Amino acid sequence: MDVTSRLEWHPLLLDPTGCRSAKPRTNGQTMVIDKGLGLHAMEDLLQTSAPYIDLLKIGFGTAALYPTDLLKRKIELARQHDIAIMPGGTFLEVAVAQETVGEFFDMVRLLGFTAVEVSDGTIELDRHTRNELIRRGREAGLLVFTEYGKKLWGSTIDTEMLLETVLIDLQHGAALVTIEARESGTGVGIFDENGQCRDEELRQIMQLLPDPDRILWEAPQKQQQIYLLKALGSSVNLGNIAPHELFSLETLRRGLRSDTFVKPL
Amino acid sequence: MDVTSRLEWHPLLLDPTGCRSAKPRTNGQTMVIDKGLGLHAMEDLLQTSAPYIDLLKIGFGTAALYPTDLLKRKIELARQHDIAIMPGGTFLEVAVAQETVGEFFDMVRLLGFTAVEVSDGTIELDRHTRNELIRRGREAGLLVFTEYGKKLWGSTIDTEMLLETVLIDLQHGAALVTIEARESGTGVGIFDENGQCRDEELRQIMQLLPDPDRILWEAPQKQQQIYLLKALGSSVNLGNIAPHELFSLETLRRGLRSDTFVKPL
Amino acid sequence: MDVTSRLEWHPLLLDPTGCRSAKPRTNGQTMVIDKGLGLHAMEDLLQTSAPYIDLLKIGFGTAALYPTDLLKRKIELARQHDIAIMPGGTFLEVAVAQETVGEFFDMVRLLGFTAVEVSDGTIELDRHTRNELIRRGREAGLLVFTEYGKKLWGSTIDTEMLLETVLIDLQHGAALVTIEARESGTGVGIFDENGQCRDEELRQIMQLLPDPDRILWEAPQKQQQIYLLKALGSSVNLGNIAPHELFSLETLRRGLRSDTFVKPL
Repeated sequence: MDVTSRLEWHPLLLDPTGCRSAKPRTNGQTMVIDKGLGLHAMEDLLQTSAPYIDLLKIGFGTAALYPTDLLKRKIELARQHDIAIMPGGTFLEVAVAQETVGEFFDMVRLLGFTAVEVSDGTIELDRHTRNELIRRGREAGLLVFTEYGKKLWGSTIDTEMLLETVLIDLQHGAALVTIEARESGTGVGIFDENGQCRDEELRQIMQLLPDPDRILWEAPQKQQQIYLLKALGSSVNLGNIAPHELFSLETLRRGLRSDTFVKPL
Repeated sequence: MDVTSRLEWHPLLLDPTGCRSAKPRTNGQTMVIDKGLGLHAMEDLLQTSAPYIDLLKIGFGTAALYPTDLLKRKIELARQHDIAIMPGGTFLEVAVAQETVGEFFDMVRLLGFTAVEVSDGTIELDRHTRNELIRRGREAGLLVFTEYGKKLWGSTIDTEMLLETVLIDLQHGAALVTIEARESGTGVGIFDENGQCRDEELRQIMQLLPDPDRILWEAPQKQQQIYLLKALGSSVNLGNIAPHELFSLETLRRGLRSDTFVKPL
Repeated sequence: MDVTSRLEWHPLLLDPTGCRSAKPRTNGQTMVIDKGLGLHAMEDLLQTSAPYIDLLKIGFGTAALYPTDLLKRKIELARQHDIAIMPGGTFLEVAVAQETVGEFFDMVRLLGFTAVEVSDGTIELDRHTRNELIRRGREAGLLVFTEYGKKLWGSTIDTEMLLETVLIDLQHGAALVTIEARESGTGVGIFDENGQCRDEELRQIMQLLPDPDRILWEAPQKQQQIYLLKALGSSVNLGNIAPHELFSLETLRRGLRSDTFVKPL
């Protein structure tokens, strides 16, 4: 079966907004969170959606739970489809806390991951150690995605600190900086306890940021995706997207859904 | 593996209500919404559930996102299992707005869809154009499902207008008229902002309708399905059912769950 | 593909808490609820997760909906992976109400189930009949899981009655006693209408129970799983876990997630 020919559609039916780019993308990137897909589900995801996925995160510490051969196969499949793949940041945080960072990077290399996430959602990480982890990832030939924000319920964003973190992370070689919203998307970062976006904070952040294309917003809930697409444009980078919600997001980006339907003049 | 023999069960264990009919059904129809199933998941759905699905909707504009061969294969599988299959109404609405209705019907024919949905959830559609789209679908040999209701948050039902729409749609050859509830089932049509059914409106509508078997209620939430099964009987037509909730709905229809358990005298 | 080698990981990365036991387990058991998995999804679940599943429940009456051969194959697969498998309790309750208990046990034997659930979530079941059903299950060589609690919205736990039920059920040969929380986990048993755990009731129950390892708590929501893991320890028995949430629960049990991350001294 030929899974490459998607473009024989009438262009206006495929992408009425006319603004969706192809991989590799410099913006409009989508990061999918994988909480335990088996091989059949992984194959389904790649056959239907590989062109729409830029990055796959093996959520939190789940990378430790797979049979080794199965995890290697998943990673191989992602690579074949030009999708960067990384273990979740909490896994590296556990390694930092347990002083097994060496073993963590051995594992990353052994399994074939192409990226890592450097975060401090749960542990404290001083600037020096953070730089060191970014450097270590880069030296191992990996893409490094750093994350800003605590996982603690009710935690908010310190805009000054965010700006500083973004600048230094990028300077040290981070590919993108992710804004934490957890798997739930409530009571954390730019989202309040109902998952609503804090407008004023978002505006402040956008004014300060040097390059919005280097930010990836975790936005697990559909209402959050719609909000950010409307506020920041259809090429905003979005993450923590559930596999079964990916098609929905892609139709939103293209204006193929009521919520982001762009009517022609 | 023989996937046809389901009926050797003791009839009372399979269907304690004794009222579930087989396909093709004139009522008790179930429409499943497919938001991006891959082939393995599609095969799983059909192997477990084909007898319980009357209609499959390829949700909103997602039909545009699949590789062509994969989408054709999905459509072929649905046809083999006597399931009508159609692209979501928003897709045709995009085509109307973009003036690519011809291309839309070309695509429908090329891919092998057996049905279309004519809706005006997002765009304005005058009665003449609506009739024309129904006619065009019928002439192409397709089943036509029309939809009543806006997708706009807070939109409600104009009972008079609904009745008129139903009558004229059916007169022009619509198979069923669907009542819009979106994918979320909140703040739209007969459901309030919490997804609760507006009793009084439902009662009014039922009093006016000539034939309740020609209406299909979108009811994505389980509480809504239970409510409508209790209010309108186990043979009400229900739609926008998620694939992973289909078995749950079928047990509800048959009285195999606590919520709709009919105790014998 | 070798799906057995999971243990070559650095032990601290796989299980930083150092307290996760292997099957067969006397505590820390996980019961997954299956609401209609097809064969591909079932294979995915077993390949990724068999070591983490102790018991699989074919939810409510869904066992009646599968093609016979497919259901037999599912049961066979579970047995091959040392997972106990049973139909949902409502199915037996329907049989009691319809006076088809004999047919129910014929079906259980014919299909190869290894366990049954004896519950009275919907029907009334006197103590004598309850004992009789447990006995019948044991005589058929099955594991018997009994359940305490009504499915009715707003129903709470009578602590005295719970204690009595647990003691007599175990005395008659029940393997574990399940505490009802339905599929939703709201407004039932120890959970209030928002799905929050009723602290005081939980404390009372724990004081009275002779052996907490013989209790299995239904806890479908992630917040409930986290709460019970924190309150009762990572080896609490938990049930009604959705297949796609199983990996998440296993990382919680092992301290591989922010919520239950145990920092070393």
